[in-house]
Amino acid sequence: MSARYDIDGLVSRLDGIKTETNPALVKQKSRDFYWYSPTLKRQLDEVSGDVVVSPKSRDEVVRTLEVAFALGIPVTPRGTGTGNYGQAMPLSGGIVLDLSLFNAVTEIHHGRVVAEPGAVVAAMDKTTRADSRQEIRLHPSTYHTASIGGFIAGGSGGVGSIRWGGLRDAGNIISLEVVTMEASPRVLTLTGDDLHKVSHAYGTNGIITKVEMPLTPAYAWVDVIHGFDTLREATEFANSAGEQDGLLLKELAVVAAPVPHDHFKRHRKYLPREKHLVLAMVADFALTPYLAFAARHRGSELLFRNDTLAPEDAKGLPPVFELAWNHTTLRALRDDPTITYLQVLYPFPNQVELVTRIHERFGDELPAHLEFVKFDGKVTCFGLPLVRFTSEERLDEIMAIHEEMGAPIFNPHRYTLEEGGMKQTDEVQLAFKREADPQGLLNPGKMIAWEDPSYDYRSGKTFLFRGLAEA
Amino acid sequence: MSARYDIDGLVSRLDGIKTETNPALVKQKSRDFYWYSPTLKRQLDEVSGDVVVSPKSRDEVVRTLEVAFALGIPVTPRGTGTGNYGQAMPLSGGIVLDLSLFNAVTEIHHGRVVAEPGAVVAAMDKTTRADSRQEIRLHPSTYHTASIGGFIAGGSGGVGSIRWGGLRDAGNIISLEVVTMEASPRVLTLTGDDLHKVSHAYGTNGIITKVEMPLTPAYAWVDVIHGFDTLREATEFANSAGEQDGLLLKELAVVAAPVPHDHFKRHRKYLPREKHLVLAMVADFALTPYLAFAARHRGSELLFRNDTLAPEDAKGLPPVFELAWNHTTLRALRDDPTITYLQVLYPFPNQVELVTRIHERFGDELPAHLEFVKFDGKVTCFGLPLVRFTSEERLDEIMAIHEEMGAPIFNPHRYTLEEGGMKQTDEVQLAFKREADPQGLLNPGKMIAWEDPSYDYRSGKTFLFRGLAEA
Repeated sequence: MSARYDIDGLVSRLDGIKTETNPALVKQKSRDFYWYSPTLKRQLDEVSGDVVVSPKSRDEVVRTLEVAFALGIPVTPRGTGTGNYGQAMPLSGGIVLDLSLFNAVTEIHHGRVVAEPGAVVAAMDKTTRADSRQEIRLHPSTYHTASIGGFIAGGSGGVGSIRWGGLRDAGNIISLEVVTMEASPRVLTLTGDDLHKVSHAYGTNGIITKVEMPLTPAYAWVDVIHGFDTLREATEFANSAGEQDGLLLKELAVVAAPVPHDHFKRHRKYLPREKHLVLAMVADFALTPYLAFAARHRGSELLFRNDTLAPEDAKGLPPVFELAWNHTTLRALRDDPTITYLQVLYPFPNQVELVTRIHERFGDELPAHLEFVKFDGKVTCFGLPLVRFTSEERLDEIMAIHEEMGAPIFNPHRYTLEEGGMKQTDEVQLAFKREADPQGLLNPGKMIAWEDPSYDYRSGKTFLFRGLAEA
Repeated sequence: MSARYDIDGLVSRLDGIKTETNPALVKQKSRDFYWYSPTLKRQLDEVSGDVVVSPKSRDEVVRTLEVAFALGIPVTPRGTGTGNYGQAMPLSGGIVLDLSLFNAVTEIHHGRVVAEPGAVVAAMDKTTRADSRQEIRLHPSTYHTASIGGFIAGGSGGVGSIRWGGLRDAGNIISLEVVTMEASPRVLTLTGDDLHKVSHAYGTNGIITKVEMPLTPAYAWVDVIHGFDTLREATEFANSAGEQDGLLLKELAVVAAPVPHDHFKRHRKYLPREKHLVLAMVADFALTPYLAFAARHRGSELLFRNDTLAPEDAKGLPPVFELAWNHTTLRALRDDPTITYLQVLYPFPNQVELVTRIHERFGDELPAHLEFVKFDGKVTCFGLPLVRFTSEERLDEIMAIHEEMGAPIFNPHRYTLEEGGMKQTDEVQLAFKREADPQGLLNPGKMIAWEDPSYDYRSGKTFLFRGLAEA
């Protein structure tokens, strides 16, 4: 691809900023967890940038964008590459803007933290915990590797969403500093509704250079697992546990049998194969009421709590959040490469009924995995069901059946914002891209509304980005 | 009344424990805010104990109960007497057990506090804030005067309920230590579901001698008031603000025009008479998103925020929570003694519609006052509407119309647990009373199921306790 762009000119003009052009290393930094999806794997396997640029400060970001703009080289920003949809994969080649070295925690206050975009969430928490026993409200299951900027640009929620909702919800991001892709890049600070311009925009319309996030107390969280004989009972328990306003939980998920026994290897001895699980993270001081609440719930059996384990049993056990969200998928996929997954919303107030009906219909082709969250002030659940994959056609059919039955799909087998998300143009993000990236150089191919305004992405077809088609 | 009981014998056997028999002082300590209700005022105005006993430790409580049991003298416990239903008024005379001197904060941990029952909530918060910037989750509007034990025994929720639900919700009380009323009083520690035995039982079945409560961060809370042209708009705004899972609020209320202008005197200059208000307490770091959220809401006008006031304007202004819950009632009542109030639940999901219909029906006879809360995992509102009182018959009629329209009433004009609450026997509390107070000496007259098991308190009549009838 490098024939297309003046990479040598770029590298020389970025003197003093770390760059990398070794093709193997560049390709490594051009990937994320897109291979969770057989569809994305087929489409994106050959994608690579031409150069990795690793700025360590806002000034270095500004300089990089200025030179890239002058040379007409696309820039695809990336944190640590833990996304699942090819969000940070450079479809038109060019620059992979690796922000992982731009990662300091710069301010800690009572209730909020300011950090650079490449800060890894676990490292931020370590710092804020040591400072004042505080931690980030929300994080992905890739807590130990994901960057905060990448989470904001490419994620939507995760661990903590049972308490705080998602990143889109007012108050879960306080402010973002963003650099534009113009001849003279501007530095903007966004707050309030303006945050929607760049959060979950895959870096298509600005580079996040500073984040200000709310903090919440870093309690001692206890991992607790209950087992149930039926998915219905597990779902009902999780739903009502989520509705206990006084019980401080950080994570609440259901994983259907036999997935936990088959794929949660280090926990296996605690997990009978026929049991459907409810995984929870409970504040230590809320453990007694949580266990009392569970004990009076029909059919619940306490299978595991990590606060009373002998040290030799605790050793090497991953935290429960690394059995949840996309780590559930990851663990199954590692054992069985034919497994993939979906992303489903079961809307309030019919979530329990809908989960039951859908999973009765699909049986073992679609083992249930539910993540309970707050959504518009109510408790409901997202699904990340595993799919025993047979063909892309059958995958599409399974998704269509979900939508027919009333459960919207956020398709994890698409690399565009629209197809993976709300299936409509985000006018706010599009307008901001016109302003902040007039040449369309930021993360090309991810925003259909920019690339091909006339494209009907509800046609049932899959958008194929020109740049990708050419490659 | 003292002819009935051997008060002299009691006082001499309690040597070393503070007692008071001066009738004027005893009468003062025999009262609460029962006079909010014209009905209770008529019924309870003459109620008085015979002696006030003020233990300062658990041992002194145990000794008092032991002697009282031996002499057959009733014991009515009380914190600081900030209840509204005569909960702590000694209907059979005898001992007023004043726990206000038994008030130390004994332990502070990350996420929880242990205290003696007489500790005033504001004093506890002062201690936990200084120790580790933590505070109690829930408190009544009588924050500066109410004791924690009295709140647990006689209250149900309040400031903080928009985030945590009510005291009845699992996790909002961690443990309680209780002393029984037997020949040899036992000391019991209750956790989990057992907490329901004595919380909100008015001290009828045990004396709380230690409380363990969860703590939450003591952020800098900002008072914010928005105005709206219609009650409907104010209600809709409050409801949707309550459903913003990421916005950290501690209080969220609606007070209809013209109550705020007429009765919130120190805030009057900020409050146009025709505006319906939404009162909120917002964490400082959530202020920008809260104001952005409000700004995009139809018809909202920012009337007041206390974080940008000049010092001379801030001076003497009460906090917004002292305009809310029963302080709304108190402020109106002080100006106009013909005003009283109700307690209403507008059940989810019809709360906005129900509020609108009910208040359209009653107009200015019933100025709206709504307190938004989490209730079984959803946002809804309680009402503490003011009532321009004409007669007890009309008051009953207004309540009956509420119930017909689908809004259950928690009658604040009754002194019994059943009539003021769920209108059914609490079998758990009754069973525990049989065990912990076999002679029925604790707070006589408040639990109908104990006093007169055959009484039909759904008959529409008012229960009149024999002891009170005799007096």
